[in-house]
Parts: sequence; C-alpha cells; structure tokens
Amino acid sequence: MSDSRRVYFGKYGMQKKFLLKTETARTLYLETKALPIIDYHNHLSMEDISKNVRFYDVYDLWIKPDPYKHRAMRMCGVSEKYITGDASNEEKFIIWCETLPKLPLNPLSHWSMMELETVFGIVEIPNAENAKSIYERCNRYLETHEVTANSLLRLFNVEFACPCASLTDDLSVFAGNACVAPSLRGDDVVAPTIGFLNTLSRLAEMAISDLHDFECALERRLLEFKKVGCVFADHALDDGFAFYCNDGKNGERFQALLKGELSACEGKKLTSYILFTLGMLYAKHGFVLQLHIGAQRYTSSKLRKMVGPAGGFAGIGNTVNVRALTEFLDAVDCTEYGLPKTVLFTLNPADNAVMSVLAGSYSKNGEAGLITQGPAWWWCDHKLGMVEMFENTAVFSALSNFVGMTTDSRSFLSFVRHDYFRRILCDWLADKWENGEILCDLSNLKLLVKKLCYENAKKAVRL
Amino acid sequence: MSDSRRVYFGKYGMQKKFLLKTETARTLYLETKALPIIDYHNHLSMEDISKNVRFYDVYDLWIKPDPYKHRAMRMCGVSEKYITGDASNEEKFIIWCETLPKLPLNPLSHWSMMELETVFGIVEIPNAENAKSIYERCNRYLETHEVTANSLLRLFNVEFACPCASLTDDLSVFAGNACVAPSLRGDDVVAPTIGFLNTLSRLAEMAISDLHDFECALERRLLEFKKVGCVFADHALDDGFAFYCNDGKNGERFQALLKGELSACEGKKLTSYILFTLGMLYAKHGFVLQLHIGAQRYTSSKLRKMVGPAGGFAGIGNTVNVRALTEFLDAVDCTEYGLPKTVLFTLNPADNAVMSVLAGSYSKNGEAGLITQGPAWWWCDHKLGMVEMFENTAVFSALSNFVGMTTDSRSFLSFVRHDYFRRILCDWLADKWENGEILCDLSNLKLLVKKLCYENAKKAVRL
Amino acid sequence: MSDSRRVYFGKYGMQKKFLLKTETARTLYLETKALPIIDYHNHLSMEDISKNVRFYDVYDLWIKPDPYKHRAMRMCGVSEKYITGDASNEEKFIIWCETLPKLPLNPLSHWSMMELETVFGIVEIPNAENAKSIYERCNRYLETHEVTANSLLRLFNVEFACPCASLTDDLSVFAGNACVAPSLRGDDVVAPTIGFLNTLSRLAEMAISDLHDFECALERRLLEFKKVGCVFADHALDDGFAFYCNDGKNGERFQALLKGELSACEGKKLTSYILFTLGMLYAKHGFVLQLHIGAQRYTSSKLRKMVGPAGGFAGIGNTVNVRALTEFLDAVDCTEYGLPKTVLFTLNPADNAVMSVLAGSYSKNGEAGLITQGPAWWWCDHKLGMVEMFENTAVFSALSNFVGMTTDSRSFLSFVRHDYFRRILCDWLADKWENGEILCDLSNLKLLVKKLCYENAKKAVRL
Repeated sequence: MSDSRRVYFGKYGMQKKFLLKTETARTLYLETKALPIIDYHNHLSMEDISKNVRFYDVYDLWIKPDPYKHRAMRMCGVSEKYITGDASNEEKFIIWCETLPKLPLNPLSHWSMMELETVFGIVEIPNAENAKSIYERCNRYLETHEVTANSLLRLFNVEFACPCASLTDDLSVFAGNACVAPSLRGDDVVAPTIGFLNTLSRLAEMAISDLHDFECALERRLLEFKKVGCVFADHALDDGFAFYCNDGKNGERFQALLKGELSACEGKKLTSYILFTLGMLYAKHGFVLQLHIGAQRYTSSKLRKMVGPAGGFAGIGNTVNVRALTEFLDAVDCTEYGLPKTVLFTLNPADNAVMSVLAGSYSKNGEAGLITQGPAWWWCDHKLGMVEMFENTAVFSALSNFVGMTTDSRSFLSFVRHDYFRRILCDWLADKWENGEILCDLSNLKLLVKKLCYENAKKAVRL
Repeated sequence: MSDSRRVYFGKYGMQKKFLLKTETARTLYLETKALPIIDYHNHLSMEDISKNVRFYDVYDLWIKPDPYKHRAMRMCGVSEKYITGDASNEEKFIIWCETLPKLPLNPLSHWSMMELETVFGIVEIPNAENAKSIYERCNRYLETHEVTANSLLRLFNVEFACPCASLTDDLSVFAGNACVAPSLRGDDVVAPTIGFLNTLSRLAEMAISDLHDFECALERRLLEFKKVGCVFADHALDDGFAFYCNDGKNGERFQALLKGELSACEGKKLTSYILFTLGMLYAKHGFVLQLHIGAQRYTSSKLRKMVGPAGGFAGIGNTVNVRALTEFLDAVDCTEYGLPKTVLFTLNPADNAVMSVLAGSYSKNGEAGLITQGPAWWWCDHKLGMVEMFENTAVFSALSNFVGMTTDSRSFLSFVRHDYFRRILCDWLADKWENGEILCDLSNLKLLVKKLCYENAKKAVRL
Repeated sequence: MSDSRRVYFGKYGMQKKFLLKTETARTLYLETKALPIIDYHNHLSMEDISKNVRFYDVYDLWIKPDPYKHRAMRMCGVSEKYITGDASNEEKFIIWCETLPKLPLNPLSHWSMMELETVFGIVEIPNAENAKSIYERCNRYLETHEVTANSLLRLFNVEFACPCASLTDDLSVFAGNACVAPSLRGDDVVAPTIGFLNTLSRLAEMAISDLHDFECALERRLLEFKKVGCVFADHALDDGFAFYCNDGKNGERFQALLKGELSACEGKKLTSYILFTLGMLYAKHGFVLQLHIGAQRYTSSKLRKMVGPAGGFAGIGNTVNVRALTEFLDAVDCTEYGLPKTVLFTLNPADNAVMSVLAGSYSKNGEAGLITQGPAWWWCDHKLGMVEMFENTAVFSALSNFVGMTTDSRSFLSFVRHDYFRRILCDWLADKWENGEILCDLSNLKLLVKKLCYENAKKAVRL
C-alpha cells in the first residue's frame, strides 16, 4: 500500500511528484520550472517592498499577514487571543501548527507545507508535536539569513507583481521599480466621498465642480497610473450587484453628492454611471478590467469590528444577476472604444458556466480573449475550484485565452500558489491528453502550458 | 471483463467490496464496522418505538413508510393504485420490484439491496421475475422471526436516535429510553396559531398574553425538551426564505396575532423575530440548530391532496438568499450568547460552496465547528450528493468538524444509509490519500474516519 | 508515453476508441453502431430538405450555418470580416482551421474532426498548415460527389428529424416525407401580434375576435400540425421567466391586445395564460412539451445588430425561478388532461438538480417519464455538460426514462453529435458498471444503451 507521505517526501520529493499523478503530468510540469511568475493582482504592501522590510520572526512572515489561516483557526474553535489577540508569537505559531492536521484537503494544508519547504527547506508536516521545534528552526533561519520582501520576490522568481493601489494613493513607491506596477482598485472611485473628491482634485490639479470635471480628473489620474506601468484595474461586484443604465440625470446626482444630499438609492445609479465611465476610459487607454464578482462581505459584525473588513470572514454571495452584468458590459461595448479586455472572477462556483460562456458574447476585431474568466478566486483557490474553472473555461470558451494565475494575496509567501496552480493545471491537462480528449501532440501541449502559466499573463501586463 | 454483480455478490460479498474500489478504502471501511450509529435527526414513529411494534408484512416494513420509493414508482408511470391506492400489499410489492431495474445509479437501487440483505439475508437484485418469490420469503421470515422496531434498532447497532417532535408533543414517550431523544421540529413555533399557543400555555403552565409571555413559555418548554435529552432543534428555511431584522414592533404583531388580525406580510416579520429568539435560546441552553434549507414543497397540488404534504413529491428550490441567511446568523451572533452550534443542510447542490464557506464566517472561542455544513440531505443523499458535500466541506472549511451522517427518514430500514455513507466516505478519502492530497499517515486517516462516522456525532448529542 | 493522436488516428481509428476508455465502453458502443438517429428538435432548413439542396462548397456546408464556430472565432479575436463579413470562402475556411487548435477540449475541436471524417474521410487535425490543402480536397470532393441535404440525412442514418416550424408556417413542405415532421416552436404564439393573429385566422379559417376564438384557432392549427406528424412543441423560458396564475382577466387583456392597447406588464400575464392554455392543449392532443430554460439572449447589441439574434452570442441566464416553474406545471396539471409529457432543458448547469428532481414531483397514471430532463442543451452540449446531466438524472430521477439526444442545430453536419453523445454515454455507463455502481448484468446494460440512444426517442415521436 502506498504511503501518501512518500508522494510528498519520498525520494522524488515534493518538487517532483506532488499532485502530479502521471508521467505526462510531470513532463508538462518540468516545462514550468524555469518560468518566472507574473502576479497581476495582489495585496502586497508596497511599503514593505519599497523599504525592503526584513522578516525576523516566522509568525510575522507566515501567519500574521494571512487571513486564510486566521479563518481556519476560527473554524476549529481557536480563541481569538491566539489568532489576533495578545498571545505571544510562539503561542500563536503553535496553535496554527495544531490546527493544520484538522484541515485535510483544505488548500492551507498544502500551501503551508509548500511555504515552509520553499523558504526554510523544512519538509515536515506541522503538528502539535513538532510545532515548537519548527518555530525555533524557522526563527534561527531568519536570524542567520537576510529574508526580505525583495529576497522573497527573487526566491519565487517573481518577474512582475501588481499590488493594489487606490486612485488617490501615492504612486512614487512604484517609480523606478521595473518589477512592480499598481493594480488599480476602483471601489472607492465608484462611490466617491467628498474627501475622495478633494484628494482627487489635488492630485489631478484641477477643480471638480461637476460630473464632467470628475470624469476629466479620473482620466488624468488614470494616465498617471499608466505612466507607472499600471495595466489592470479592479472592481468588486459584490452580492446584490445591480446596474442602472444612464438616464441622463447623473449630472444632477453628482451635484447632490457635492452638496451631501445624495440618497443611497440615487447613489447606486451614480455608481453605475461612474463604473460605466471607467469601463470606457479603460478601453480608451488600454487597461484590463478585472471584475471580482459575488462576495458576501457582510457576515459577522462581531468579527468585522474585531479584526477589520479584510479579516478573513467573508462569505460567498448569491450567483450574479446576469442581466445586470450583460447590461453593464453592453453599455460599455456600445461606446466609441468598445469593451476593454475584461477578466471575470467569480467567488460562487455555481457561476462558472455563466462567466466562461460570456467569452463568446462580446467581441472586438483582433482582440483574442476580450472577455475571459479569471483563475479560481479567493476561497475557490484550491484544486476543486481550479479544476472546475479549467473545465468550464475549456468547454464553454477558449482555454488558450486564459490569462493565468494571480494570488490576490497579502502574504509574500503566497507565491507558492503559482506552483500549486501549475501542478494542478499540468495534472489536469495530462489526464485529458492521455484520455484522447485533447488532440494536439505533446510539443503543442507544452506550448499551451507555457501560455497558461506565464506567457498570456506577460502579454496582458504588456511586458 | 469484470461483471459488476460479482462486486456485489461474489466471494467477497457486498459487505466486503461494494463501493470500495481500493485496498485502502476497504482498510478504512473495516474501521467503521464496529461503530454504532448515532442518527441525530429522523422521522421515526415514537409510537412504533415505544410500543415496540412488530412487522408481519414486508410491504408494511419496506415500502409503505418510504416516500422515496413511492416517488420513484410515480416517475416510472406506476398507477397510484399500486403506490398508495387499494391494490394488495403483494401487488404493490411486485410493482416496486419491477420498478427497481429502471433506476440504475439511483440510491434506491443500492439501498433496496442493502435493506433486503441486512434484514432478510436476501442477496438478489429484485426484478419482475423474482418479485413474488422474494415477497414470500420475506413474509415467511417475518412470521418466523420477531422483527420489531427495537429489534431493528439493535440489528443496525443504533446507539442513539433522535425522532422529530414538535414543541407541543407529548414527551413521556422519550422518558426512560436511553437510546432516543427528541429532535425538536420548530416549524410550527415560528408561525404559531391560536391553537398552538393554547397548547403551549397549558404545557408551560402559564398564561400567554403577550410576546414576553410567549418567549418565557418557549424557554420553559425547551427546558422540558432538554430534560429528556433533546440537543438538536430543526428549522426549515424553504425556497423564498427572507429575514426581517427586529424593528421593535413584534410586541404589537403578537397582539394582532392573538386577536386574529395579523396579516400574512406582518406575520413573516414576526416569524423572523421568533426564529431569532429561538436561536438565542438554543445558544443559551446548548442546543444545536439545524437549518434545512432550500426545499420547494409546492409542486403538484394533486399529489399533495392525494398523499399528503410528506408524500415524496417535493422539489428543490432556488439557492438561498445568502444575505438573509447571514443577517439571521449575525442577529443571533450579536446577542449575549452568540450563535448556537449550527448545522446547515442544503437541498440545492448549487449552494454547497455557499454553505460550507460560512464555517469561516462566524466564530466562538473554544467552539470547533460552530457552523458546519450537514450531510447531503434528502434527494441529495446519494454518492454524487455526498461526494460533492465532502469535497466542498473539505476545501472551503474544515472536514474534521463534520458532524456525521443522519438519515432524516421515516423508515426503520433506512439505517442502511449509514453503511452507504461510510462506504462512500472511505472510498473518497482513500482516493484522496492514495493520490497524495491528504498528507497524514494511515493511522491518522483511520482516526479521521471514526470521527466523521461516529465520534463527532456522539459529541454533538452529548453522550 | 501514449500519444493522444494515436487514440484518434491510430490503428484502431476514431471509430473504435475515441472517448471510449475501457473495453466495456467499446462493447457498449458497438451496440449503437446500427442504431438510426431520431433528432426530435433541430433548426434544419425545410427548404433545403424539400428542395434537396446540393452543397458545392465546404465553407457553405461546414462553417456558414454553424454559429458555434462563428462564436469561437470571435473569442479568438478573429475580425468579423472573416466570420460573417466579405472575406472569401477560402479565407474564412483557413481562419477557422487556424482557430481550431486554440480550442482544446471545446466540443468544436471534436465535432470538427468528426464532421470532416464522416463526410470527407479526412482524418487530419485542421490547423494553419494544412488548411488550404483540406479546403481544396473538400471542395474537390463536393464537385465529384453529390452531397445534398438528403444524402447527408442518409449518410448519418437519420430515421426521423423534426425541424422547427412556427404555428403559422407552411406545412406543405412536410407532407409526404416520412422522415420529417415539424417541431412546433411556440414562442410567437404566447406573445401574439396582430399580424400573427391575422395569419392564424386565415390558416385556421375562422375569425378571431376574442380569447375563446383564439383558443379555438390554436387548437385547429395544432391538429393540422398533428396531421403532418408533429409531436414535439417547444417553448423558451428565458432568464427572467415569471408565471402569473389566471386571474380571470385574460379575456379583457386579449381585447386590449386586439385594440393595440395591451401594456407590456399586462402582456406578460396574457403570455402566462396562453402558455397555460397551450400546455392543456398539448396534453389533450398528445404533444410532448419541450421547455428550453435559462438563456440570456441579451448580451452584445452590436453583435445582435450585425449578425442577427441567432448569431451565436447568447449567454447563460440565472437559474430558473423554481416557484414560477412549479406553478406553471401545477396549473396545467390541475386541468382535465393533466400535464403533457414534458422535457426540461436547462442552459445553466447549476439547475441540473432542480430540473432532474422535478421528475418525481408530478405524476400521471401509466405515463413513465411524464417529466424528464432533456439532454445537455446548446452551450452545454459537450462531455462535461452531458456527464453532469447523466449524473443528475440518474441519481435524482430515473435514467431509463431519458428521452435521448437531439442536436437543436442549424447544420446538416451536426448529426455527428449523436455519435459524440453515444460515445460519452457508453464511456460513462461503462465506468459506473465496472465500478459496481450499476448492478445489472451486461446484457441489460446493453438494452439500456439502446433505449437511451434510440428507442426512447422513437417512442416519444410515436414511430
């Protein structure tokens, strides 16, 4: 009887066989080993990168910046004291190691192993027994090796990364770093506050006294983003997303906004209009629009208050209102510039078919993959989620247009997820090929792997 | 070429290999053979149990109490005469045997075999030819063996079973039976009638003249349920579930109810408030809340009239309104006692991800599995439904918190479904382990199997 | 290492092994080789059939009438000039061949191969290199062989085909052709215009001055359809489907319609009533009702304008409003004639369980499969969609009632999809049987294959 630990730790080691069932899968995977990482959307701290912060403590590096791990500990009944509370780093580390064996098949059980192996060369499955020893070895390693934000980017062979930035964020941190560009996070743009407008006015060096001014200022600022290499812009269409076509009253609504008299209901209509305007500007200036669809962020008020809105407790919302989505896309498509290249991410796997099929519902001459489904996102970022996303994209649209993996993560260690993605992709493609469902020869299959793991993303970020 | 009948009937027999592909699966399954059954939610007749009713006729035992079988016969065009009508027991038995071969892969085709083998030692696939012979052998067996409600509980090694009881049901049937406790069915509590209030008033020995009285009476009665060992309470959130936050007007609504003047629309708001109140009381007194989500019970009026609301013709409703569900959970979570342990059952498999991910959306210090998805429910109780449920729970939450199988059935023979569940679980876990996706060693995998098949349920019912 | 091309082209050839993993699968598939095709719903041109049009150009035969291919080219960025524009047939042919390698696993990559092999004997994978050569060989073949609408029906062994016809279409094209009957497309009936009413009045040879007249005329016309062999009627329940129970005001609404004064909102209520009336008439006269559920046809206005509403750019809509669907079915079920046999097609795979489970929610004495899920439809017509449909139908209802494959296609070459369906079905059944989940012996499994591939459909069309 095979012992699964051997698959991971045996003479071939994790690097050779983990998640790679067949010889064909391993052959394909070898093609990816030399490929750099393009991570076109994440939440890394640009401050950490630009200051090249050094990590001295494994808790600070491995657990603190990763809400997935906090979430898993909460599921297992760990008291908040040991998650975000005042327990010591060592106590928190040990509790996490005790939690890991309770998560069979959860991607955290795989990622955690891969993170420890890649950074520290530790190839043990953490648990209650070895936790203290691992803690000490990791910290010793961090004392004796200079592990920094940039050393980690190099370790993972990250060629290009796009940390999120708001339209009003300082862009100077991106200047002069060929490895990074901002991924524009547009959620505060579509529901602007007076404070936001004041900052935008200052940054765009123009007064904003009506909707037209606002649109001009947005465009000016977008061009600043473009200058520092920004290509991707991102909007969340959370559970409840609606789209209101332009009724010609958005100028009035903007005036009401300036006067602080815009009702919530009217505000939603203005939001639709701004989203539409941005879509048009993205197309005009060659940005790629990412739509992150289907989060239900309102779950536990207690946790929201305790650990903040990004604390790892979000849920999956209802499937998207398809008509609202197609109306939004059509409104932008009907403008002079047509649609920008658009990547649809869904948090609800029940929407996989809906998302992937939209690839065939809009077109632009000469633009392959005008609309494509993005990689399995957030809580779906595991083998089940990835395979479902691959399957749906392949049969409902054109797999070769897939734009590649991105982590969307806050942790420098999450780049292991590219390796995870590549293994799962190669294993899946190999099965389909061995089974005679993919008809090309092996050399063309290898070319496909390279496109999906690296080249398509590289093209998308215009490197 | 292998002959599938050998898998079932061959030298290893059903008990050895059925649904167990690999050696590892069979090794894991052996661990479950000695484990008793905890069935924490079902619809067995407490009258049958307390009177220890004896079964003399195989139709009465095998077909009559099982709406799944009635439903399948209707699908196959069988006239109602032979399902619930005035045909003889023998005719009905024979028709069911003729129907079975028309249901390849339907769980009934597996359960029926397992039921016949477990109770009667019959290892034949029923069909038109052998129906009469099987009928006669079964009835001969029932004449010569004392097959009763309690002998069946012993045969299936049922350690603890929780038949449903309404809040106003007589609890004396549960007294003195260490093997059973009620599973509180709360659907009539959240939409109380005057008749219900009168009965509750009598049982709780207090007048109910306002909402506060009602809440006191509910709490008193809940404590009576607790005294007879009740731990699980159950509410159906059918297709169309909405939740209304407390607007402070529920006292008035309750008065309108007492006067018979509560409108349907206002009644729904009161229902939300009572559900919220019960949630709080469940948390206060250590009950586990089961939410059965997503049934569409309004399909054929003809069948409803002919065979009653539980006659096996319900459909699957739309996916749940996620925001309504999270608002309800949050409202209870924000009270002094936080959330009770909550088990989410979905009838619509398209909600598997939505349900399982909520495990990470609420927390309580020290409570592992505060929210967990329940086993594949009702029409989903088959290999496809179970495996989808396992997959989703594992990747979106923590598999080790899974609370275990329950039948939710009206038939004493349905306990074969625990064996069915165990086989499918072991087969699935074995595949994942052989494949290197579960990283623990085999001894820990065996411990996991025991938790998921028995120990977690035992802990949940406080044995 | 195996080379997948060998699976397709090797010594066994496509006809032997393609998509058939196991010996059992190939054994089952052999049973289907002699079975004719019943295609009970498609969009073939009756003009082409009755005039027995001859094809001289491979582009006209292979690419022009297939919006799936147009759609795939748009996904890959092909300019509209080469899809529906003024490029030459040869240019368009070459572009399509260049597109094919970009679609691994998309059913088009399989169908295209099967189409070329079946009609032209060409067993090459089209690509940029061989495109011109294939183009020339195909056209040479068409010059030297008489390939016509009817020769293709013979080539594919089509015993019976049902092209769509509107209620007001000329039926004379169907007379005297034993191989074809219309499949009634009812979408214009439920939302009648004055023009439609005038035509209907003329065809039914009666004045239509009120709702009762309209119903009489519908019935007369239905009987004309019945005379030319029509059995199947079809209605689209697109994304947003609602059902309004009869409130007794539809007579008034019909008068408003006649006066041109019916509002859109009131029109929807009349539509529900007409749909209900048709359901009743279908039951009365033995028609089978097909419901095609869940398309979202409003996506790109640009493409709609450019290539027409059937141009291949539709999307998948939200999951159906289950309560609306069950209310409609119940309303018809409550009439004198009960429900007609009803086949539910869903475009959104997230509705597979919802659809298949309805098989058990309504019944009619003696009518096996009164309600059944139809084959994987439209964009879902691929291995993933078919297998999901098989799995759901088998576990939630009775697989043996499945009514069989139909192409729903506009192209004479799409009959290869029956072979595709048969391979995938046999492969799936073989896996389940080898695995011991299907308990019958091989001879009964072969009988099941024949029912699902041919006999059930033959019975449904009353041959």
